[in-house]
Amino acid sequence: MSVNKEQHLLNKAINYLSDPDQLRDIIHEEKPDVSLPSQSALQEIVSLCRAVLFPTFYSNALPDESSLLFHVGMEVERLRKILPEQIEAAFCTRTDDKNALKKRAAEITVELIAKLPDVRKTLITDVEAAYNGDPAAESYDEIICCYPVIKALTNYRVAHELHLLGVPLIPRLITELAHSETGIDIHPGATIGTHFTIDHGTGVVIGATCIIGNNVKLYQGVTLGAKSFCLDENGNPVKGIPRHPILGNNIVVYSNATILGRITIGDNVVIGGNIWVTNDVPAGSVIRQGDAKTM
Amino acid sequence: MSVNKEQHLLNKAINYLSDPDQLRDIIHEEKPDVSLPSQSALQEIVSLCRAVLFPTFYSNALPDESSLLFHVGMEVERLRKILPEQIEAAFCTRTDDKNALKKRAAEITVELIAKLPDVRKTLITDVEAAYNGDPAAESYDEIICCYPVIKALTNYRVAHELHLLGVPLIPRLITELAHSETGIDIHPGATIGTHFTIDHGTGVVIGATCIIGNNVKLYQGVTLGAKSFCLDENGNPVKGIPRHPILGNNIVVYSNATILGRITIGDNVVIGGNIWVTNDVPAGSVIRQGDAKTM
Amino acid sequence: MSVNKEQHLLNKAINYLSDPDQLRDIIHEEKPDVSLPSQSALQEIVSLCRAVLFPTFYSNALPDESSLLFHVGMEVERLRKILPEQIEAAFCTRTDDKNALKKRAAEITVELIAKLPDVRKTLITDVEAAYNGDPAAESYDEIICCYPVIKALTNYRVAHELHLLGVPLIPRLITELAHSETGIDIHPGATIGTHFTIDHGTGVVIGATCIIGNNVKLYQGVTLGAKSFCLDENGNPVKGIPRHPILGNNIVVYSNATILGRITIGDNVVIGGNIWVTNDVPAGSVIRQGDAKTM
Amino acid sequence: MSVNKEQHLLNKAINYLSDPDQLRDIIHEEKPDVSLPSQSALQEIVSLCRAVLFPTFYSNALPDESSLLFHVGMEVERLRKILPEQIEAAFCTRTDDKNALKKRAAEITVELIAKLPDVRKTLITDVEAAYNGDPAAESYDEIICCYPVIKALTNYRVAHELHLLGVPLIPRLITELAHSETGIDIHPGATIGTHFTIDHGTGVVIGATCIIGNNVKLYQGVTLGAKSFCLDENGNPVKGIPRHPILGNNIVVYSNATILGRITIGDNVVIGGNIWVTNDVPAGSVIRQGDAKTM
Amino acid sequence: MSVNKEQHLLNKAINYLSDPDQLRDIIHEEKPDVSLPSQSALQEIVSLCRAVLFPTFYSNALPDESSLLFHVGMEVERLRKILPEQIEAAFCTRTDDKNALKKRAAEITVELIAKLPDVRKTLITDVEAAYNGDPAAESYDEIICCYPVIKALTNYRVAHELHLLGVPLIPRLITELAHSETGIDIHPGATIGTHFTIDHGTGVVIGATCIIGNNVKLYQGVTLGAKSFCLDENGNPVKGIPRHPILGNNIVVYSNATILGRITIGDNVVIGGNIWVTNDVPAGSVIRQGDAKTM
Amino acid sequence: MSVNKEQHLLNKAINYLSDPDQLRDIIHEEKPDVSLPSQSALQEIVSLCRAVLFPTFYSNALPDESSLLFHVGMEVERLRKILPEQIEAAFCTRTDDKNALKKRAAEITVELIAKLPDVRKTLITDVEAAYNGDPAAESYDEIICCYPVIKALTNYRVAHELHLLGVPLIPRLITELAHSETGIDIHPGATIGTHFTIDHGTGVVIGATCIIGNNVKLYQGVTLGAKSFCLDENGNPVKGIPRHPILGNNIVVYSNATILGRITIGDNVVIGGNIWVTNDVPAGSVIRQGDAKTM
Repeated sequence: MSVNKEQHLLNKAINYLSDPDQLRDIIHEEKPDVSLPSQSALQEIVSLCRAVLFPTFYSNALPDESSLLFHVGMEVERLRKILPEQIEAAFCTRTDDKNALKKRAAEITVELIAKLPDVRKTLITDVEAAYNGDPAAESYDEIICCYPVIKALTNYRVAHELHLLGVPLIPRLITELAHSETGIDIHPGATIGTHFTIDHGTGVVIGATCIIGNNVKLYQGVTLGAKSFCLDENGNPVKGIPRHPILGNNIVVYSNATILGRITIGDNVVIGGNIWVTNDVPAGSVIRQGDAKTM
Repeated sequence: MSVNKEQHLLNKAINYLSDPDQLRDIIHEEKPDVSLPSQSALQEIVSLCRAVLFPTFYSNALPDESSLLFHVGMEVERLRKILPEQIEAAFCTRTDDKNALKKRAAEITVELIAKLPDVRKTLITDVEAAYNGDPAAESYDEIICCYPVIKALTNYRVAHELHLLGVPLIPRLITELAHSETGIDIHPGATIGTHFTIDHGTGVVIGATCIIGNNVKLYQGVTLGAKSFCLDENGNPVKGIPRHPILGNNIVVYSNATILGRITIGDNVVIGGNIWVTNDVPAGSVIRQGDAKTM
Repeated sequence: MSVNKEQHLLNKAINYLSDPDQLRDIIHEEKPDVSLPSQSALQEIVSLCRAVLFPTFYSNALPDESSLLFHVGMEVERLRKILPEQIEAAFCTRTDDKNALKKRAAEITVELIAKLPDVRKTLITDVEAAYNGDPAAESYDEIICCYPVIKALTNYRVAHELHLLGVPLIPRLITELAHSETGIDIHPGATIGTHFTIDHGTGVVIGATCIIGNNVKLYQGVTLGAKSFCLDENGNPVKGIPRHPILGNNIVVYSNATILGRITIGDNVVIGGNIWVTNDVPAGSVIRQGDAKTM
Repeated sequence: MSVNKEQHLLNKAINYLSDPDQLRDIIHEEKPDVSLPSQSALQEIVSLCRAVLFPTFYSNALPDESSLLFHVGMEVERLRKILPEQIEAAFCTRTDDKNALKKRAAEITVELIAKLPDVRKTLITDVEAAYNGDPAAESYDEIICCYPVIKALTNYRVAHELHLLGVPLIPRLITELAHSETGIDIHPGATIGTHFTIDHGTGVVIGATCIIGNNVKLYQGVTLGAKSFCLDENGNPVKGIPRHPILGNNIVVYSNATILGRITIGDNVVIGGNIWVTNDVPAGSVIRQGDAKTM
Repeated sequence: MSVNKEQHLLNKAINYLSDPDQLRDIIHEEKPDVSLPSQSALQEIVSLCRAVLFPTFYSNALPDESSLLFHVGMEVERLRKILPEQIEAAFCTRTDDKNALKKRAAEITVELIAKLPDVRKTLITDVEAAYNGDPAAESYDEIICCYPVIKALTNYRVAHELHLLGVPLIPRLITELAHSETGIDIHPGATIGTHFTIDHGTGVVIGATCIIGNNVKLYQGVTLGAKSFCLDENGNPVKGIPRHPILGNNIVVYSNATILGRITIGDNVVIGGNIWVTNDVPAGSVIRQGDAKTM
Repeated sequence: MSVNKEQHLLNKAINYLSDPDQLRDIIHEEKPDVSLPSQSALQEIVSLCRAVLFPTFYSNALPDESSLLFHVGMEVERLRKILPEQIEAAFCTRTDDKNALKKRAAEITVELIAKLPDVRKTLITDVEAAYNGDPAAESYDEIICCYPVIKALTNYRVAHELHLLGVPLIPRLITELAHSETGIDIHPGATIGTHFTIDHGTGVVIGATCIIGNNVKLYQGVTLGAKSFCLDENGNPVKGIPRHPILGNNIVVYSNATILGRITIGDNVVIGGNIWVTNDVPAGSVIRQGDAKTM
């Protein structure tokens, strides 16, 4: 290829790729100066939340009062600096009042931090559940350091609080960071009780409108999804309605089971592996492959 | 253990581990100076391609003409610097004419860049498909920023172009980066039409000789694989023949379905979850578990 | 929200989050100065082991004697510096004799390094198995650079040696790094023979007490797990007993098959995809979905 | 020392060092939330200015139109992002109207960028002067890459423009970065004509109210300072009045000469090394040690 | 050059350069496992000390109580971790009792931290002196952020405390870091009173046995050195005796003056620029060039 | 300022600053694709040379044979990779034969490495001289770690070898790195014997055609420069002729002395501080201020 030909091809590609008209379909024409949340900032925010929630594990703080105070204090200060910027970016296509947005973003950050003690209390119940549920676990240290479920739940429980505070985009970005890290995909809109655990975890999917009680355990590959053939007149899935399962308390779902649609799984149920469940399951049931109704 | 014993053990290990004879089975004896593509360089190449393809999302460019031009221009310049080095490394066990290789590597890079406008056009159809196919998606921003399928398809579509240009090793390395990031394993040799999407995605496998039409949607855990018992006289799988499925247009495959072998799935087919399909499926079919022929 | 209100909420959160009493349930009260292994140090240790085991692939060493020697020598020196610190951290809740611990940590490091030649010999058989088992593989280079199974097995085989040397926590952290990277979750306690391979790999789980022979191949999504309903009087899984399958030699297990409990799969067995196996399988069997006993 | 004693000493030190009252003398009590310019941000700003002014030297841009445009465009975009933040920090103790400050900081940044073409034109005359003035210089490349005077003058000429735009603190921080790098200390308030050069440069001092004509050359260790014994009634140097020398055109000052006070050095003067000059020097003079009046 | 010749030359060079015998003259043969302080660790130690001493300037702490406490607390914790390691390295050629050394290094670190409040008090007097002594200074902010003298004195005053605590090597390394940064070379053994300042500073040298009173000001290029012709019988300078000047209170020394030998400069003296002083100067004198005795 | 006005000013500045015509005077029009040596690569090259020359000091190598070998071997390998690229960049405006240049750059690199043993031998004599010449020096460790003269001489002695091998630009860049770090400016063209030292060093200048014997000691601020009034018919200094002093053996030059022009200072001479010397000095002289002829 001649140098001229090369240059011609490159110029043509650069012109096309940098032409705003060619991005018309995927960007906000009416708001030319918007920016988007930064993945690296969100990664740091997740690290800070993990450090504040488990300071002796993720922050190298020693468990004496002064060391914990300095670490937690610095991390909270850093959160207050960087989280509001990301919240502003997430909201910026939705408002023109930048001053009000700035104030609201700072408030949301404080409100999130004020929730972290409760988030930690719940996560400690998850640690207990993981420890009690795995014969291979040797210590709480091992659970908190090694088990992907704790990382996925820490991200989810923080993201869920931000979701409840009305923040767009960021909750989903935070749970996707955990999805990439662990293979566990929990939508930040889901509601999950205490003492929740997932063994191994790769391939687990928990949909946006799931409601899960206390003391529930899932194995790898479990899907709590939407019943898929419910389409609107254009052939697309209907948006914005409850469409994922409700699980009660004290439930175990074995690997690769698939539970679909706005059905209710009662308390004290066991669902076997590789099973496809699309109807309500009464409390106390044990469902095996032969019992399940296929799609 | 005595210091002498320690030193003896270490020396023995170092001598063995640094002895070229002990690597004889896995390295190219006849070409002692070859090097291999660098994973960190390929990671940067992927980041550059994502930035050029979605500049307002991955490159912090504002959607006005000058900002887009500077970002895209710089990123293309950087691609032209680092991609040829990796292409040379990938080819270097296959040729001795270093000058011809250098020239060809530069040309391939220009050819890839010249294809990126078409790659973007196709990826925009994938963004639309993901948005239309997920009731939980709130905006195109969310799809492009958060959805693992877009990351996996961006890597795949770039890697596929390099595969068509005859580059060894690098296409596979690029799709494996996405596999590690998203749990979605698409072989760069596969052929995939427009408006393709995958929901959640963890565990999806799309084999090297798959051909997929337009407007196809897969769920997590779907395998489009080779029919496995076809072995040669030595008991190994036969290499180099079409061995993965052909999917038509407007198809949905639900979670954990497994479609194996050079079979054809016709247009407008729905395949249910957890199903094992090893025979052709006529257009318009809806396959549920009861209908499927097991292996 | 007023500034005073904000400050009050923040102070309350910081006080709670930095109060050692609120971490009582998950930290070692009796050993206030313990620290834990560092994930970034373990990441470096994994990189060093990969570099020593495959120096021309992960360390940019050229395959001539002097270059290999310098690289391997430097990497072993670095391992000797940083691995003992992590071993000490892993043991530190279990002993008060710091001098003895320091000495033992240095010895274990030497013992691990002395095992690396054997680890490499076994890994080369795994590379061969992956190459022979995949029609899409074009070279050993591609296997070693791209295939997630090699990364997962390198981590597992190193972690398993540390497990045999009695090191707590670190083996699990090392296999979890591979789990996050590849979606393949192999417990370091498992015993795995030569010529082992896993195709694609996402979602594979291999439990702590598995014993696997030579020349075994798994596909994505395969679980070799514990039979789950075996609980103690408190309703928790019984700990510390053999509870995962024993696989013989020359076995293939297709995608998403689930093999549970302390059962034995004989030599020369093929187990089909999506199957749930909870009983012994005699040598030479081919198990399809219709044959399998469900849970 | 006992552990208690150690802890007591540390707590006492931390309490003192973190007590705002103990910093009362050096911080702004009335403005508790001010921050200061960041040295690392200013270092980046200097790098960006150098890159924009000499793009083929400091920015790796190739001297063809498109490459230059992409580099300069990106660097200007980055300057517009980070310089206003530093200007706001520099002004923040002086104003309470944050919105007006933000607007003014953005304007000053644009005004600075608009001046950079003239700054470059003058710097090119300085490069010529350095080349013509040094028998050891082999090319303009060498002057721009290696000669400390060009680094010091680039910082000074940018800082001087910011000084003229009324920015506090930052101009001085920028010239101090060059002082640390080169040993040449030019106050940003000084006025310096074209074709200015300094050979070697270590120890040169040019005071805040100096006025220097065109075509002036200084050697290492030259001081253009204030006449020092002019004190006010409290024994401190009088502030805010012209107190440094005025130099005309076509002047050479040899090494370690010291020129002090608001004196005028006429055109076409040569001042010998190690000389102390405190009176006016008429045009055309050659001053040697014997001629100089000592302090 | 042939490849063989190249390889031969390289091997020869590597063999020589890595032969311990060839380093015999400059390393400790009798202590083969010693290491030396790390320049990057010392750079971090200096940054921590600057941050603790001027937290609102070098540590981005806001001047409210909680922010100061978190920053100072974290920085002191980090100092306690990394300074003892460097102290151990500095001492390690002088002792074989590693346990005693470890204990002493930790104690010295605590003792240094306990001195930092006094160090800060003195540095605040230096800030005042710099502000009062320079008509160009506009604020304390400018002095602390920009003036090289404050950086040089911060390093010196910390290094001097470590010198008094008997630490070898490290004090000198710390003052050399400032020498490189500012061109001001103060030996950590010197004794310097309050309200000390240096204008511009490049080229200033203050020798190891200098004693300087309060309220002294030096200009650039001033040397307070040893009288050089005092040699021992082998022609080398005599070591270990007081050999640098003693300066009283309220003294100004102008640029490039050189004061040599164990002479005494009385209170309230002014010494002019470029002067060479080798004899005592009585209190109240004003020394100009004509008055000075040359060497 | 209106947004339009801002955009207009910025566009105008960017257009000017990225216009190749406006750089015409300082870049190579006839060679549009040249690049220049990279300062960061040269910084790494200097670090590698320091590490190879003083491995136990700058490379953390322990003084046993294997550790030294691994460190030196790796560093030489890295030098062979990055130095030729810089040499090619330095030569690229002078040749069109890229293959020949590549070969020559590799050869020069080998030749430099082959000289490093001799460079080290000489540097060890410099260490001895610094130790013997300073009463404050406590060990060779202190000299090598802390004394700026050793850093400056290491850079100079390496740069001088590259200068002798005919490499343009790079030698000067290497000595300027030391000039910035230490304030000592030694031209790589100068010739300097063994046992050379400089005390303190700030402000020392040693010109391109200096020749210095063995056992010479300089103090801070000494200039060995060109006699400056020797101009050509255009009023510029005459280039390319010997113009700096020749110093014999066993010479001491005290601080701020200035020795100018192609004069000869005989053996065993002492030159006092602050003196200006422009004529030959016979062997055995002691020159004080009264004796010196001023310019």
